[in-house]
Amino acid sequence: MDLKIINEIAKIVGEKNCLTSLEERRCYAYDARTDGAIPDLVVFPSSAKEVSEILILANKYIFPVIPRGQGSGLTGGSIPLNGGVVLSFTRMNRILEIDPENLIAIVEPGVITFELQQEVAKYGLFYPPDPASYKYSSIGGNVGECAGGPNSLKYGVTRDYVLGLEVVKPTGEILNVGVKTMKGVVGYDLTRLFVGSEGTLGVITKIILKLIPLPEAKATILALFNEVEEAAEAVSAIIAAKIVPSTIEFMDKASIKCSEQANPMGLPEGIGGLLLIEVDGDKESIRIQAEKIKRIVLEKKAIKCELTEDPKEADRLWQARRTLSQATYNLNPVKIAEDVVVPRSNIPRLIRALEEMEKKFNIPILSFGHAGDGNFHVSIMIKDNPEDRAKAEEAVKAIFEETLKLGGTLSGEHGIGTAKAPYIGMELSPEVIATMKGIKKLFDPKNILNPGKIFPD
Amino acid sequence: MDLKIINEIAKIVGEKNCLTSLEERRCYAYDARTDGAIPDLVVFPSSAKEVSEILILANKYIFPVIPRGQGSGLTGGSIPLNGGVVLSFTRMNRILEIDPENLIAIVEPGVITFELQQEVAKYGLFYPPDPASYKYSSIGGNVGECAGGPNSLKYGVTRDYVLGLEVVKPTGEILNVGVKTMKGVVGYDLTRLFVGSEGTLGVITKIILKLIPLPEAKATILALFNEVEEAAEAVSAIIAAKIVPSTIEFMDKASIKCSEQANPMGLPEGIGGLLLIEVDGDKESIRIQAEKIKRIVLEKKAIKCELTEDPKEADRLWQARRTLSQATYNLNPVKIAEDVVVPRSNIPRLIRALEEMEKKFNIPILSFGHAGDGNFHVSIMIKDNPEDRAKAEEAVKAIFEETLKLGGTLSGEHGIGTAKAPYIGMELSPEVIATMKGIKKLFDPKNILNPGKIFPD
Repeated sequence: MDLKIINEIAKIVGEKNCLTSLEERRCYAYDARTDGAIPDLVVFPSSAKEVSEILILANKYIFPVIPRGQGSGLTGGSIPLNGGVVLSFTRMNRILEIDPENLIAIVEPGVITFELQQEVAKYGLFYPPDPASYKYSSIGGNVGECAGGPNSLKYGVTRDYVLGLEVVKPTGEILNVGVKTMKGVVGYDLTRLFVGSEGTLGVITKIILKLIPLPEAKATILALFNEVEEAAEAVSAIIAAKIVPSTIEFMDKASIKCSEQANPMGLPEGIGGLLLIEVDGDKESIRIQAEKIKRIVLEKKAIKCELTEDPKEADRLWQARRTLSQATYNLNPVKIAEDVVVPRSNIPRLIRALEEMEKKFNIPILSFGHAGDGNFHVSIMIKDNPEDRAKAEEAVKAIFEETLKLGGTLSGEHGIGTAKAPYIGMELSPEVIATMKGIKKLFDPKNILNPGKIFPD
Repeated sequence: MDLKIINEIAKIVGEKNCLTSLEERRCYAYDARTDGAIPDLVVFPSSAKEVSEILILANKYIFPVIPRGQGSGLTGGSIPLNGGVVLSFTRMNRILEIDPENLIAIVEPGVITFELQQEVAKYGLFYPPDPASYKYSSIGGNVGECAGGPNSLKYGVTRDYVLGLEVVKPTGEILNVGVKTMKGVVGYDLTRLFVGSEGTLGVITKIILKLIPLPEAKATILALFNEVEEAAEAVSAIIAAKIVPSTIEFMDKASIKCSEQANPMGLPEGIGGLLLIEVDGDKESIRIQAEKIKRIVLEKKAIKCELTEDPKEADRLWQARRTLSQATYNLNPVKIAEDVVVPRSNIPRLIRALEEMEKKFNIPILSFGHAGDGNFHVSIMIKDNPEDRAKAEEAVKAIFEETLKLGGTLSGEHGIGTAKAPYIGMELSPEVIATMKGIKKLFDPKNILNPGKIFPD
């Protein structure tokens, strides 16, 4: 990148808010999934106006601009592919307003999700979206990818909490879209068009979020099953009983084994499926619901069921699930993580198909995640060699094929980024892809903003 | 319209599914708000394919195509402005699937909202959106306008229940967007872009809806207050107590008086504000919540509070609210109905401002509606003469100005259509309007589909 351009950008954000050394820029080349190209420059803007000025320059001199939250994404959404300028939002990390009477918060994109949750909890309020990364991921990134989490079953995903946005278009115009109220239908829903657009349609610089009352209490249930079908039947029976738990997490046989080997919590051997169920709400009703769930899982042949309302005890019940993400690396050093979704009724078919694939491709395939909404995290653990990578690629394709056959979708909460871009044609028709690309071109005629994401070349 | 074109269209849908006589076509010139132009032809398509073929013809010969649900809209969204072909969806009225295990329904756009609710209730399921018109409005129209209703406070609006769509683009391509699962983030959110786009971006021919468990029980509370401020304080106190009622309906002084004159339920004279509050859920918790609400409203100086769990008794408590819509016509024959939204904390300021305007313009202005989410139905009742119409126009502008000053929005659930199109520039910046118009042009380069809506000329 021309030094002249770098100097112009430094004038906009201030020299001390630019990183130019190779060592520093190198740190902005990757996300939690994959490596990209080293950016030519990393800048830390402090306002929509600065972002706008940088984008205007980018349109003049033609260089890529890549917005970045905390780099915790799992599909390459925030990595540069061909140099350019990374916009890191760690300086725009203020909670601008918490309005307990109107149940909204206004935040800058760099606010850490967990910190927002902690702050609003002081007012007895709740911001539910809880991606696994919530302790270090930022709201801006969550909005860009439409993050979910275990809470989505009852509370929905990030999209359901975004009321309005300040956003800078790729061509530099600053837009205020959406509302500060619970409802609003004035013109097209640009707010939700930006949510989940993975930083390709605009740079989000302010977010108006809906909050809800913090549930008074919580109960946690751990249930163990011999067979995955029994666990799946228990999930269906809970839903059929008109209970909506805040969370139903599932771990398959391989996941349980992996977790127990790393950090044993004393689960019996050979368990085919584990469910972690949480209900929240007022004390009286969660007790009733939890007891009902316990009865149901035992009817559905759970071989063990523990129930607690004590937070410390609940922590213990979460041990296997919490250990898992890290423990998977004991199997092999590289993880290919997919987050497919299938209709709840097809969960057992998906799990059995994954077991078959594990045998066929002879690589560890673990599956765990949000059984309540059918959203599974499938982790393919491989060695870092061409042979294993080729196997994983075949396995991913087979997993996507099976998912779509079962009426599902390629991604529930991770997005497409670069990782799934080659596969979107399996789910979306050419006409749908053409429509999306048309929107991209309308917003970003020179393909400046986060190029190379979502759509295959 | 050229007879040759009419014949080509008749070939697509069948002659018996076309209305050509003036008397019949006249019936498709209006909605629940206003009169438009008489269409040249009314057709009743039976499939996306037929809709696609008609749109391809429209692009060839250049004539407007106007999708129409049940014509119950309140902003002119479904009326022709300059002839053309009305697509009425009364034949595409099948519930294609109710899947109780995965909590989804797949419907054609002509399904009546209430009928869907009745059908899914047989499975113990619930489709919450309940616009006042829900007994005769169709899901397709609800999706087009992103309809809300009293239930929105707890359950959200139509947007929150649309998972996926089959939609025909103005240029004829049939798209399947969204998912059949609870989550999905593959590419841009075209689903929500179509929801609330008032039939200007595509013709919806199939809708995948999310369902939830039907609440077991309901309690209804009627509370009367001397002053509107006391009613508003009660609403805030209920929310602050972490209760989310399914409904908080409000009626102002003028509304109560109007309703009592038409169909008295024996409310004391001079009441300044009425609240109708409903909580739903499991029996145990709603009883606790209802008692808590009763305590709160009495603390906030309610002069009367009735509480019931009996459906018949609840019906009686709803009498004033139910009577109102029709009763307003006793004041004057023409209703200008707006549905502004303000942040809950600004409700009293809005109501007081409306009272001032009633005096200033010397025309009846009633306000009632969904106090829980700050969404008010402001009814300006006028005589059908130029003088009153001029006053109403001034009043509407003043109401919008006040609403925006209070941090609100022009429409919570009615949409823009033709009625509010002249005003959107008060809320949206030129850049936002230009972005929306750009999307319209991208989707509909020849401006075929429902032209003249949303955007001012």
